[in-house]
Amino acid sequence: MEHLNLNLNLNLSLNLSLNLNPNLMLDRREFLQKLAVGSGALAIPELHRGLFPADKILGIALVGLGNYATHQLAPALQHTQRCRLVGLVTGTPEKAKTWSAKYRIPEKNIYNYQNFDEIRNNPDIDIVYVVLPNSMHAEYTIRAAKAGKHVICEKPMALNVQECEAMIRACAENRVQLSIGYRLYFEPHHLEMRRLGTQKILGNVKMMESSLGFSMANPKVWRLNKAMGGGGAIMDLGVYCIQGARRTVGELPESVTAQGFVLDKSVFKDIYEGMTFQMNFPGGAVSNSTTTYSSYVDRLYATTGGKWFELNPSYNATGAGGRFSDDQIRPFELKTKAFQQIDQMDDFADCIAAKRTSSASGEEGLIDLKIIEAIKQSADTGRKVRLVWE
Amino acid sequence: MEHLNLNLNLNLSLNLSLNLNPNLMLDRREFLQKLAVGSGALAIPELHRGLFPADKILGIALVGLGNYATHQLAPALQHTQRCRLVGLVTGTPEKAKTWSAKYRIPEKNIYNYQNFDEIRNNPDIDIVYVVLPNSMHAEYTIRAAKAGKHVICEKPMALNVQECEAMIRACAENRVQLSIGYRLYFEPHHLEMRRLGTQKILGNVKMMESSLGFSMANPKVWRLNKAMGGGGAIMDLGVYCIQGARRTVGELPESVTAQGFVLDKSVFKDIYEGMTFQMNFPGGAVSNSTTTYSSYVDRLYATTGGKWFELNPSYNATGAGGRFSDDQIRPFELKTKAFQQIDQMDDFADCIAAKRTSSASGEEGLIDLKIIEAIKQSADTGRKVRLVWE
Repeated sequence: MEHLNLNLNLNLSLNLSLNLNPNLMLDRREFLQKLAVGSGALAIPELHRGLFPADKILGIALVGLGNYATHQLAPALQHTQRCRLVGLVTGTPEKAKTWSAKYRIPEKNIYNYQNFDEIRNNPDIDIVYVVLPNSMHAEYTIRAAKAGKHVICEKPMALNVQECEAMIRACAENRVQLSIGYRLYFEPHHLEMRRLGTQKILGNVKMMESSLGFSMANPKVWRLNKAMGGGGAIMDLGVYCIQGARRTVGELPESVTAQGFVLDKSVFKDIYEGMTFQMNFPGGAVSNSTTTYSSYVDRLYATTGGKWFELNPSYNATGAGGRFSDDQIRPFELKTKAFQQIDQMDDFADCIAAKRTSSASGEEGLIDLKIIEAIKQSADTGRKVRLVWE
Repeated sequence: MEHLNLNLNLNLSLNLSLNLNPNLMLDRREFLQKLAVGSGALAIPELHRGLFPADKILGIALVGLGNYATHQLAPALQHTQRCRLVGLVTGTPEKAKTWSAKYRIPEKNIYNYQNFDEIRNNPDIDIVYVVLPNSMHAEYTIRAAKAGKHVICEKPMALNVQECEAMIRACAENRVQLSIGYRLYFEPHHLEMRRLGTQKILGNVKMMESSLGFSMANPKVWRLNKAMGGGGAIMDLGVYCIQGARRTVGELPESVTAQGFVLDKSVFKDIYEGMTFQMNFPGGAVSNSTTTYSSYVDRLYATTGGKWFELNPSYNATGAGGRFSDDQIRPFELKTKAFQQIDQMDDFADCIAAKRTSSASGEEGLIDLKIIEAIKQSADTGRKVRLVWE
């Protein structure tokens, strides 16, 4: 059995190297390292030969055909190697028709929100990708799990910690894998920031600035609806600032402070238009963030003393640009794919075949929601909120 | 009298244009505008013909011959056109000797801290420039004013609001001018940020990030001594973040929040190593800042929605670099002088000759200390602190 696992690992490395993806190569290295020290975190209990042969291309159904599905995920799925678009779930018959024609989706793989649960009987669909408004993430992730499908859930994972826990539980109980749509976990510039930070290439990270904002053109989008979006920019954009900082330093914050603000009271009646927030990490590093729906900012900066490294732009889906300073300032440009979601979805297909946990796991989504809840609490109360991690 | 003033203005414009300094040209424009609308703010009551003929080059004495005086002010004074280095005040006889030889300062223009007040009898010295540790700013500014000398006081103006008010009072009572060593009030990139922001060239400023930090190599400097420095990075570096933001938006903050942090407890025993702080402006704009003695950051960023403008680097004395975005990202590089302090000191000499108030007045220094006091209070109490401006 030990021998069999090792063979599989070698096969996997081959696959991943062919992708020319530094992230996956890093994952592979960590993977082999962990295997070398006997950690069980990435253990592969069995091969599931019949169910998922190593070369099977997994079928994905997108649930919710909004902007992100239309302009990012579906195009990305034209480039994936380990998975492909085979199904749709939509409440709009016209969309079903257009998409079906454009992407050659057979009628039998198209569902609506009433007959969604019947997806359990469809062997074409291995993965359900939930791209619905935040308030529907928990429900559809849990229903997909109960239908025996692996799940990718778009970020933020859910409205709150309680929902995240229920989603993780449902996936575990139904023996399906869960991943969050954290495209930046697979983006080379972000992986380089993480390498520079956690491997202390330029020294210990002491301070970070991590900000993301844009001007929300349409005030009627569901993202601005408190019940559907869960609280505005912090849910949608702030989650990137949080993960950028915590993954660069490689620690979880032990406390947060936060301040909410509203510029346009006619639009932002019950949610903050933006927030500034600070995280304190156990190793002593601090981060300071701005996230807003009022204006553009997009930057992740980390400094170790006299030296620093940054992405600017950082978080947007159209690509990052990096610089770092040792004795002089140098840019870094890494090879990227047409869509960041290609590697994200291919890696998840690999995870399912190999029965390893995705680096963008449900637990990672839960971590960010715990931090977001603390940030909201701090903004509302004006007090520092401490976080305890198990 | 009306006619006489106008003539003087024209003479001044000529002088200032010759400097090729966009700031001074802006000041001149504001100056003429204010004159045009009959504002008394810049009124020139009399010419002081005998005391300061228009072409007199004013004499400056530096009080305190530390790093800043040695590496910035004295070299800058080799390039000034309206003032020059003629005197010294130092407690170290060796420094007096070296400086005297290097800059040809006559023995009679060299003072120590015991005989400093005798400077009143020295007609060579028109301006006293206080470059001492922060805790000595108030005392030496007030003593210089009582000696009938105009004063430039290095930033931060003093340890607290009370001291600032006493300094302003002493200068007014003794009919001398007071200016703060705010070199960036005369730096073309910062004036361009202010123009873009206050004239709303790219729209209303909605959000700003304004940060300055460096790694303090020597833990024994007076800046880290609470009694002498007044509280670490916020006093020394944070003051630039404050003025960068408030001058870009052209408003005074109505409230602040702040969070202090300490990474190295062996060095930072009674002051914060750094602070993050936020300012809320009456027009709705917010700013978020990091200031620290632990690591390098130097940036002023302002965004108006989809558009933005920034300096990166911003505040250091070795020069700024600018970028802005309208439909695309464009750099802006403005003509600068060898030392930022050249224009600062020449402008003050002009102010004295023209009896106009410096744009970097004592009142400006007081504003920043009021904000710093509020920031310290917020960091200590964890509460938002409101500011009231008369």
